[in-house]
Amino acid sequence: MEFKAREIAAMIGGQVEGDPEIVITKLSKIEDGEPGSLSFLANPKYEPYIYTTKAAVVIIRSDFKAEHPLPCSVIKVDDPYTAIAVLLDMYSKMYKPRTGISSLAFISASAKTGKDVFVGEFVYVGENVVIADNVKIYPQVYLGDNVKIGEGSILYPGVRIYHNCEIGRNCTIHAGVVLGADGFGFAPQDDNNYMKIAQIGNVIIEDNVEIGANTTIDRATMGSTIIRKGVKLDNLIQVGHNGEVGENTVIAAQTGIAGSTRVGRNCMIGGQVGFAGHISIADDVKIGAQAGVPNNVTKPGTILLGAPAIEIGRFRRSIAIFNNLEKLVQRVSELEKKLAEVNGQQEKK
Amino acid sequence: MEFKAREIAAMIGGQVEGDPEIVITKLSKIEDGEPGSLSFLANPKYEPYIYTTKAAVVIIRSDFKAEHPLPCSVIKVDDPYTAIAVLLDMYSKMYKPRTGISSLAFISASAKTGKDVFVGEFVYVGENVVIADNVKIYPQVYLGDNVKIGEGSILYPGVRIYHNCEIGRNCTIHAGVVLGADGFGFAPQDDNNYMKIAQIGNVIIEDNVEIGANTTIDRATMGSTIIRKGVKLDNLIQVGHNGEVGENTVIAAQTGIAGSTRVGRNCMIGGQVGFAGHISIADDVKIGAQAGVPNNVTKPGTILLGAPAIEIGRFRRSIAIFNNLEKLVQRVSELEKKLAEVNGQQEKK
Amino acid sequence: MEFKAREIAAMIGGQVEGDPEIVITKLSKIEDGEPGSLSFLANPKYEPYIYTTKAAVVIIRSDFKAEHPLPCSVIKVDDPYTAIAVLLDMYSKMYKPRTGISSLAFISASAKTGKDVFVGEFVYVGENVVIADNVKIYPQVYLGDNVKIGEGSILYPGVRIYHNCEIGRNCTIHAGVVLGADGFGFAPQDDNNYMKIAQIGNVIIEDNVEIGANTTIDRATMGSTIIRKGVKLDNLIQVGHNGEVGENTVIAAQTGIAGSTRVGRNCMIGGQVGFAGHISIADDVKIGAQAGVPNNVTKPGTILLGAPAIEIGRFRRSIAIFNNLEKLVQRVSELEKKLAEVNGQQEKK
Repeated sequence: MEFKAREIAAMIGGQVEGDPEIVITKLSKIEDGEPGSLSFLANPKYEPYIYTTKAAVVIIRSDFKAEHPLPCSVIKVDDPYTAIAVLLDMYSKMYKPRTGISSLAFISASAKTGKDVFVGEFVYVGENVVIADNVKIYPQVYLGDNVKIGEGSILYPGVRIYHNCEIGRNCTIHAGVVLGADGFGFAPQDDNNYMKIAQIGNVIIEDNVEIGANTTIDRATMGSTIIRKGVKLDNLIQVGHNGEVGENTVIAAQTGIAGSTRVGRNCMIGGQVGFAGHISIADDVKIGAQAGVPNNVTKPGTILLGAPAIEIGRFRRSIAIFNNLEKLVQRVSELEKKLAEVNGQQEKK
Repeated sequence: MEFKAREIAAMIGGQVEGDPEIVITKLSKIEDGEPGSLSFLANPKYEPYIYTTKAAVVIIRSDFKAEHPLPCSVIKVDDPYTAIAVLLDMYSKMYKPRTGISSLAFISASAKTGKDVFVGEFVYVGENVVIADNVKIYPQVYLGDNVKIGEGSILYPGVRIYHNCEIGRNCTIHAGVVLGADGFGFAPQDDNNYMKIAQIGNVIIEDNVEIGANTTIDRATMGSTIIRKGVKLDNLIQVGHNGEVGENTVIAAQTGIAGSTRVGRNCMIGGQVGFAGHISIADDVKIGAQAGVPNNVTKPGTILLGAPAIEIGRFRRSIAIFNNLEKLVQRVSELEKKLAEVNGQQEKK
Repeated sequence: MEFKAREIAAMIGGQVEGDPEIVITKLSKIEDGEPGSLSFLANPKYEPYIYTTKAAVVIIRSDFKAEHPLPCSVIKVDDPYTAIAVLLDMYSKMYKPRTGISSLAFISASAKTGKDVFVGEFVYVGENVVIADNVKIYPQVYLGDNVKIGEGSILYPGVRIYHNCEIGRNCTIHAGVVLGADGFGFAPQDDNNYMKIAQIGNVIIEDNVEIGANTTIDRATMGSTIIRKGVKLDNLIQVGHNGEVGENTVIAAQTGIAGSTRVGRNCMIGGQVGFAGHISIADDVKIGAQAGVPNNVTKPGTILLGAPAIEIGRFRRSIAIFNNLEKLVQRVSELEKKLAEVNGQQEKK
């Protein structure tokens, strides 16, 4: 690529301060910003780097006030994070994915494929599968019988989708994801054995969902496990049978959601969080990393931390005391000593 | 399917109350019970739904006493959970899996396959592998040299079993499971490098085991990592080298068992639990979600929670205080103030 | 295999005490040491077994002093763990891996393969991939366009490496590992939707790295996510975009490292640990299992535990009090009662 600062500014609706004719040939992070590169400053934590960066141009927030002279030109925008997202997207689209159906894929006679699809080598497509237009299926994917894949979705290598599951439009499913494996349901028997409960439901992934590598979402016992539109799931997440994740909720890596639990809309869930089964979480809830949520969260917008999770401020005050619990014990010991002295003095009188 | 209530009752040994001739055409969950459907009530948490369900028939516990008139017929059984398991199993068996060996599978000349097996597309079967009768191997599975798969076991797509590992009868191994990868063993060297310790053992899975999607069980350094008969493992679990999980133990998702640890029989282990290496856990132990178990648990039937895990009642009392630790600090501050006053008064006297 | 004790001693530079001519035919663990076998004692925890083992020969530390007569011959070495590593390595090398390129692999015309490589069945090799000499690629691996694999590296079945990622020399990547999936980056929009931030960087794995089954390492947004030489990662680990793990650091299973976090050199990280994003961890740091690290760790050699992680001694003292927090509350209640009595007595006077 090769663009001038003013051309970049036009693409993202920003204002150049500095040299509008300066030429950019690549993107870089602000902390290792290379000469001739375009960088950006979105996270305030990285602000010091803007005074030393070697990047030619840095995208910054409109209201940014420099405290020192800047070594670079800048492009001011309302939201640098979105601006860089737009640019990265343009850049990534220069890389054209393959199209066509590989002769080394296996596609059942009853399956249907739309226009401009890509089906890679060693892909297995079961009976009655429906693959919509513009779908990209990388090598070694498995689609069980009756699976449906919506328009424009991308399935990376080694995705496994069991029979009867449905994926919406414009979804991105990363390598190693397993959708629709049996839910973990067993009826305990008198002899300590467990009887398997057949899982006859499915998984439904709505539109615009992204699912990270090696994440697993189990099929429902009956009915559907549902991931609502706009949800973003990171890697190595577990969603149990009959679970539901609400619209536009974002969940970081290694979080687990036990069976029949419903997470609301617009929630932000940290990494390694655990949710008990059969509970319900309100909308707009935020849950910090490694928290454990044992019960319903009924109030929208609640912010929780800890295991079991409690209101974040309360958790922080408690953990601050916990970290010096020894001191509290010393204060109590001191009190006991002093009180014994007081009692001793009283007895003497 | 189409059955009358009395026919269903006969299958599961139950008693109809209401209309024995009413016709059922599908299964549904009690909370979204649809007209003409059969549902069930096993978890008391869902009891309110029985008074409003649209399901035609609900399977309930014999000793259930309705507090209001019921809008449906019922079938009374000793254990609704087992009854529904029986019915779901019948239902799921209507879906006939494929048989035969795909011409697109690779099977080594020295491998042996039994009667009525299914081997799907792009499966790799190594030298001297033995696949018993009625085994189902879905597409894209990998079986290393000398692997043995027992009668009636099912391997879902993309299961990887390294050389020399053995699977018993009637096991279900879900997509993406890895059995027999090298244990995590390295000898630290003087120059801060680590020397790999070759892992020459294997993994043995006994009969009637179910293993959830993307779970990993490492081969032993020497000897075997062993999963005993009847064990049920959920998704994304890690079992380290030389570990052992005892008969009929059930473990929820994302739990990790470090190397050389033995978990007893009939244990119930929650999700995201961690076990240290080289420890031993007694039979019938229950461990709550996210607990961390650093030491041996010697007493059968112990119930633990917390990290490090302690007896559950003790944990609950401690965490209740923790959640209000500020209050305890205030009480101590108040005591200090009052005691200072007492001392002040004494000095004045 | 069949060796005499003195031959084994020669291989590992040790001294025989007992019968140098005794014949060994296999390896065993000391606790189930079988007749005719060679075993070893490295972990002091297993010391009692040396007095009862049936193994013919046990490798022990030079400074080991037996407290009872030993039932076996011994070979004394400086470091039994390294000695057994050497022997296991010799043993494992008797198992010769395949070489050659399977006719059932798909290799792009522009890809290059070195000498003595193995490429198994159903492997996909993209455009411009470079596979160096002596690389072993097991069946069903996926290598995206422009991937480079260094000399002597081993990729087990079902490894997926996205385009542009690079693997160094002598690396071992276990089954189901995903390298280079998109980092988890989304720009929040006003309508609660998220806009995907294209991830145009890659993953670089340096030399002598081992990566456990089903671990996921995301590609950088820009630049590289880097795993430095000699790093050992266990199973089911998550490394976020733009992360870095320093030389010879060892990380146990199910740990998660959020985006842009740098872990130092020679660190030892337990299982199920979580690191927040955008932080930096010094060299030689040790972090106990299940800890949560929210902030920079600046002092080399720090040992942390807990969530949030604090200095280990402090954590242990605090958790000991936590486990008996009830008792502290009782002491405070007792003080309140006694102080009330004191006040009562004073008022009476």
